[in-house]
Parts: sequence; structure tokens; C-alpha cells
Amino acid sequence: MSNENLNLWLEDLYGDSAGLKLKLRECLFSGTSPFQRIAVYDSHAFGKVLTLGGSIALTDFDEALYSECLVHPTLSVAGNAERVLILGGGDGGVAREVLRYPGVKRVTVVEIDRQVVEVCGRFFPTAASCLNDPRVELVIDDAHRYLRDCPHQFDVIIVDACELTNAASDVFHTLSFADSVFRRLKDGGLLVAPLGCPTFSGDECRTTVRKLGERFPDNAVYLMTIPSFPGGQWAVARCRNGAGETTPTAQPWHKDLRCWHPGLQAGMFALPRNVQVQLGLPRG
Amino acid sequence: MSNENLNLWLEDLYGDSAGLKLKLRECLFSGTSPFQRIAVYDSHAFGKVLTLGGSIALTDFDEALYSECLVHPTLSVAGNAERVLILGGGDGGVAREVLRYPGVKRVTVVEIDRQVVEVCGRFFPTAASCLNDPRVELVIDDAHRYLRDCPHQFDVIIVDACELTNAASDVFHTLSFADSVFRRLKDGGLLVAPLGCPTFSGDECRTTVRKLGERFPDNAVYLMTIPSFPGGQWAVARCRNGAGETTPTAQPWHKDLRCWHPGLQAGMFALPRNVQVQLGLPRG
Repeated sequence: MSNENLNLWLEDLYGDSAGLKLKLRECLFSGTSPFQRIAVYDSHAFGKVLTLGGSIALTDFDEALYSECLVHPTLSVAGNAERVLILGGGDGGVAREVLRYPGVKRVTVVEIDRQVVEVCGRFFPTAASCLNDPRVELVIDDAHRYLRDCPHQFDVIIVDACELTNAASDVFHTLSFADSVFRRLKDGGLLVAPLGCPTFSGDECRTTVRKLGERFPDNAVYLMTIPSFPGGQWAVARCRNGAGETTPTAQPWHKDLRCWHPGLQAGMFALPRNVQVQLGLPRG
Repeated sequence: MSNENLNLWLEDLYGDSAGLKLKLRECLFSGTSPFQRIAVYDSHAFGKVLTLGGSIALTDFDEALYSECLVHPTLSVAGNAERVLILGGGDGGVAREVLRYPGVKRVTVVEIDRQVVEVCGRFFPTAASCLNDPRVELVIDDAHRYLRDCPHQFDVIIVDACELTNAASDVFHTLSFADSVFRRLKDGGLLVAPLGCPTFSGDECRTTVRKLGERFPDNAVYLMTIPSFPGGQWAVARCRNGAGETTPTAQPWHKDLRCWHPGLQAGMFALPRNVQVQLGLPRG
């Protein structure tokens, strides 16, 4: 019998003025890759939690919510998408949702940090196992460099990371992120890019919306609710180079999803006035 | 010049396994009423914050979001409501939103704690000032006792508190909360009752949904996003004793609101599958 009473908490601060506290059972993994600190904890509220650079990236509780809400609002209106590019996404959850569409022939996952793939393979197998699907091509590379050198074009490009849109990367890689992505999309192709939390990262959200708007004439923003993310809410941009379908095509397997269903779609794109203001969009 | 460097944080724990941290500038008020601890802080992220019994009840940042999303999804479909009862609501924000409807003749606010009214009058005047409106009747009383003894019936009853539905109160007051409220509603009248955070208070949410469902045949649940609340998301029940309108009637002053607009309405009532499961509702 042990009298050990561990008072172990994870604190994920948004900026330096607010944050989430999670009570932990234990630390399951802690390491440093060439790119970042990586840790996995077991928490009471959300099960296993992956942190990258100290910020919560993934939890057992809401990985499926995030992956479904990043993929289905777009893939469900993409017609017969065959080739999908995921920038980031080394945990595999987003690829898993993309692979549900029977028309998809090839999913390219570009993850900069091989150790993220390895750690997720060990601790988050329901997400990571789909990276072994024969339709998945895993590329360990910087997403900006990959976009610059890649000879292919894609039906859908999904950004599964937030820092891809930072100014330093844009300067370093000459072409802006929005330009790089635009060039790698087929006509009528779709881009999905998370913006951040409107409440705690309003400035970054507004900047990304403005930059994407300069490049993509047809763009929209929707909201997803992720309890372990800052403010519990995340804004996502969906951009298209051309016009296209906006109503989801119903699929027989939709009933298997944990969070998203076609009946959510319209409501996700209806933004409260405070979010319109936070994102610099016209107040409806 | 002062070298004072105050490292002051407010922690609002949900259960004992997760919570929100807010960096504070200072404590503006701290006291104890016969019912609870009351404090007001100045925070970096959300401006002034009212805590009751240690939990965040109100902030400058999201008071309007909460009050609008508690009132307008119901009042906008209530036809010509004349008489509205607010149980709790001593800060005045919910009454302010109700008073926007020109047909409303009388708003009764039943707040158990006079000191909440006084403190909000001092620190949250944009909410509290509407309690001086001649159409508002402020009653300092226990909501259960008021419901038991009140001779009136109401077009709309709004619960602006969570603990009204607790089991101890139900036993003490003989009639269940759902029964008490049902008896004080006119035919076709509407009840609005917050359920809590589906993620962190799933059990309580399910219990309240079930109890309300036994009494009200026509009931629906919607979600509102409140960044300072647990998980950033709160579920609310809207119950009607009879059938009625579900599409909001557009009002010229809707454009003045900070958060809600009629275009949000349908999406608020479309629940993700995980929330349906958390609330014990059929999985859509």
C-alpha cells in the first residue's frame, strides 16, 4: 500500500493571462526532439494528453471531435476528392477521417517531427494506426519546403497545425503560405486552415483571415468546440479557388462519427457577432 | 515608483480535475453574505470578474454573450410575451435583454442574495442599471419559496442560476422544481433552464434534462459558447407547455446585440453527437 498523494497539474497558458489546468495521474513520456518538447500525460478529465512545446495538442477525450470537425465540413462538400494533402497531422487522426471517403486514392501527410509520429503510435493508436493504410504516404519534412518543391496538385489541402501561417516562415520561404498553398491546389480545390481561438488569439486569427482572403476569393470561416483548446472554441477557414457545392453529401458511414453530422454543417458556419468582430469579418 | 510585481491568479475548478486560470490585476471587493462568498476581481483576459462561492458567475467580457444567449433564443419565438419571471439574475443582465422586447409589461427578478444586487450595482452597472426600469419588480427571496407562494402566471420563466435544480431543494420544497415552474407558466408558456457544461457536468445535465422531459412534452436543448465558463460551452433547455413558433421574429434592434442574431438560432439547437450522448438524448 502506498500513501503517495500526487498533486500534479498541467497548466496550458494562452498568452500569459489565462489558461487551462488539468489534474494529472502521471507523466507517461517526456522527451525533446530536434523541434520541440514532447510529453504525454494521463489526466483525470481528458485521459491521455499530448503536449508539444508545453501546449495541449491532442487528448483522448477530444481528438475525434477535432479531427472530424477539421475534415468533414470540407470533404463532405468536395465532390470526389482523390488526392489530399495534410500539413502537420503526425498523430494520424485527420488522415483517419479523410480515409473514410471511398473516393480518396492518396493521402500525403507532411510532418516535420518524426518523434511526434513515434510517440503518437505508442500512446494514441486509434489515431496513429491509419498512417499504415496503403493509401497514406508519410513524408517527414518541413511543410513550407514541401509545398515549394512538390510537383503534385491536390483536391484538398488540410493544415493540421497553427504555426504554419507565421510571418517568419513566410519570409524565409519567399512565397507567402497562402500563395504556396494556392499553387498546389487543383482548380476548384479546397484549403482548410485553423485560425486559432477568436477570444485569446484574435490578432492572429484576423491576420490569417486577411491573408487568405487576398489570395482566395471564395472563403468562409466556421467554429468548432474543443474543450481542451483555449476558450473551448477554435475558428477554421475553408477556402476554395473557384465556386462549388456547399451542402454536405450524405454518406452511409456518417452515423459512425463521434461528433460531426451533416445537420451541424450550416450552424458551424453561422458566426456570433462577437466572433465576427474578433475575426475582422463584416458584422452580420 | 513601485517595484510591486503581483503574481495573482484566480483558479475556478470544475469538479476537482480541471479548471480555468485567470491572471488578476487586483481584488476589487471581497465579502461574505448570508448565502455565499462574493468577490470581484480585475482580470487581464476578461476585465472585471464576479465570483460567487469561488466560481466565476459574470465577467465584463462575456456577460452580454451569456445574457443574450439565455434570453433571445426563447423571447424571439415567444410571440407577445408580457410577463416574464427571472429566477436568480440579481446582476440584471438577463432582465436588460428581456426589456428589449416592447411587448414586455412586467419583469419579476427573484434573487435570494441582496448583496449580489448591491455588488453588481457598483461594479457591473451596464447590467445592473436596468433593474431600475419601472417595468422591473425586484424580489429578494428564495426562488423555490417564491414559486410555491406566487399567485401569478408567466409567459416566460428564465432560470438564471444552476443550483435551482438540485435534489436537496426539491425535497425541501415538496414539489419538484419542474412541477413548480410548470404550474406558474401560462398555457403555451416557455421555460429556459441552463443545464451546465456537457463535458464537465454531464451527470447533472442528464438528470435535469430527464426531469424536465417528464413534465414538459415539448422540450429542446441548445448550446451557447461562453469562454469564461467550464469547457467554454453551456447547454440550455427550452421547454414549452404546448406547441408554438420556433422561428425567431426579426426585430429592428437585433442589430444592436453583441452576440446573438436570428441567423444563429437553428445552429444553436443542432447538437454534436458527443453532446447528445453527454445529455442522454437520442444520437442524431
